[in-house]
Amino acid sequence: MKTELENVLPQDIEKRSFEIITEELGEVSLIPGTEPIVKRCIHTSADFEYAKSLKFSEDAVQRAMDAIRDGAWIVTDTQMGKSGINKKKLAQYGGEVCCFMSDEETANMAKEQGTTRAVASMERAAKLDKKLIFAIGNAPTALIRLYEMIQEGRLKPELIIGVPVGFVNVVQSKELILSLNDTPYIVARGRKGGSNIAACICNALLYMMDEKK
Amino acid sequence: MKTELENVLPQDIEKRSFEIITEELGEVSLIPGTEPIVKRCIHTSADFEYAKSLKFSEDAVQRAMDAIRDGAWIVTDTQMGKSGINKKKLAQYGGEVCCFMSDEETANMAKEQGTTRAVASMERAAKLDKKLIFAIGNAPTALIRLYEMIQEGRLKPELIIGVPVGFVNVVQSKELILSLNDTPYIVARGRKGGSNIAACICNALLYMMDEKK
Repeated sequence: MKTELENVLPQDIEKRSFEIITEELGEVSLIPGTEPIVKRCIHTSADFEYAKSLKFSEDAVQRAMDAIRDGAWIVTDTQMGKSGINKKKLAQYGGEVCCFMSDEETANMAKEQGTTRAVASMERAAKLDKKLIFAIGNAPTALIRLYEMIQEGRLKPELIIGVPVGFVNVVQSKELILSLNDTPYIVARGRKGGSNIAACICNALLYMMDEKK
Repeated sequence: MKTELENVLPQDIEKRSFEIITEELGEVSLIPGTEPIVKRCIHTSADFEYAKSLKFSEDAVQRAMDAIRDGAWIVTDTQMGKSGINKKKLAQYGGEVCCFMSDEETANMAKEQGTTRAVASMERAAKLDKKLIFAIGNAPTALIRLYEMIQEGRLKPELIIGVPVGFVNVVQSKELILSLNDTPYIVARGRKGGSNIAACICNALLYMMDEKK
């Protein structure tokens, strides 16, 4: 058990953390271009399983960065996810984060349709006249509805971040997204994920764009 | 790999999740009275490690619930943590959640003192004339400052939720809290934790109070 405090300056803590992560990943092979995302998920969770569970469709990272540069908006399924995203950086490209979960209109829609607020808020988001990135860290029902709308030709998102966490239909909802052919995705296969993971994937993309400037 | 969707009504998803968690925990022995907190952490993370890593000081749960009933405020070290806490339920007892991290005053204090914003926001929180519960899911420096203020006799919190996540001084900061004698704590030993875990422990306490009504 470590007991001595390491003497690391506040501004160096993140850098040192990423060094430790890189060191401990060792020979684990990551897909080129996805490393900053995988490492940031490990940084957020201290869980090295993400090195194996994160699945990227071909060119997902590049296409997501292009979409952000074009002013894409990010839709979340929790206020917590919204709260964790670096909205200042996104705004530099003209984008905003939106979450319809706590609106009265969403609650009413869900009640009328006998569905979850997450489903209702996806329906509402799909109507936005914007390029859309969906960052789903909580509700498998949101992910399932996105899949259905894509199949019905009603939605063509720039990226789906599919990382809900949990025990009921979470695994299955992610497999649905993984089965899509023309939709860019970043999915944490299995039960793990969360709003924090959804937000940190968005931030990883934003920070990668900074580095490419 | 599960592919068939389970047919569970929206309002039953949480209940079914807790059943699965209880089932999979099997014979793992949890400290009586702490089960709802441990299970909610697993529910939030899909990570069964919390069954072993969560450490409770004696009577921590009872003392925290008493404090909430007396109108205690909850202080977080991230907006994300604040965002995840059920503020409506807390308000029923007169409490509020506060987070000083994004204030200009905190930024100025940190700059002047050459410290982190997390440390500065703990200093500010300590001056609140309220019973205080600290829910720390991100910054080990916040936890270290709380430890120091307690040692100096400047702070007597009702509960410290010590669950920062990460790689630099995270393990050590939690061990400091575990070494305190008269301070109620709930600590996730090791590297894991997060703002989501901090928030979910607060919510578990609030929901337990509902059940005792």
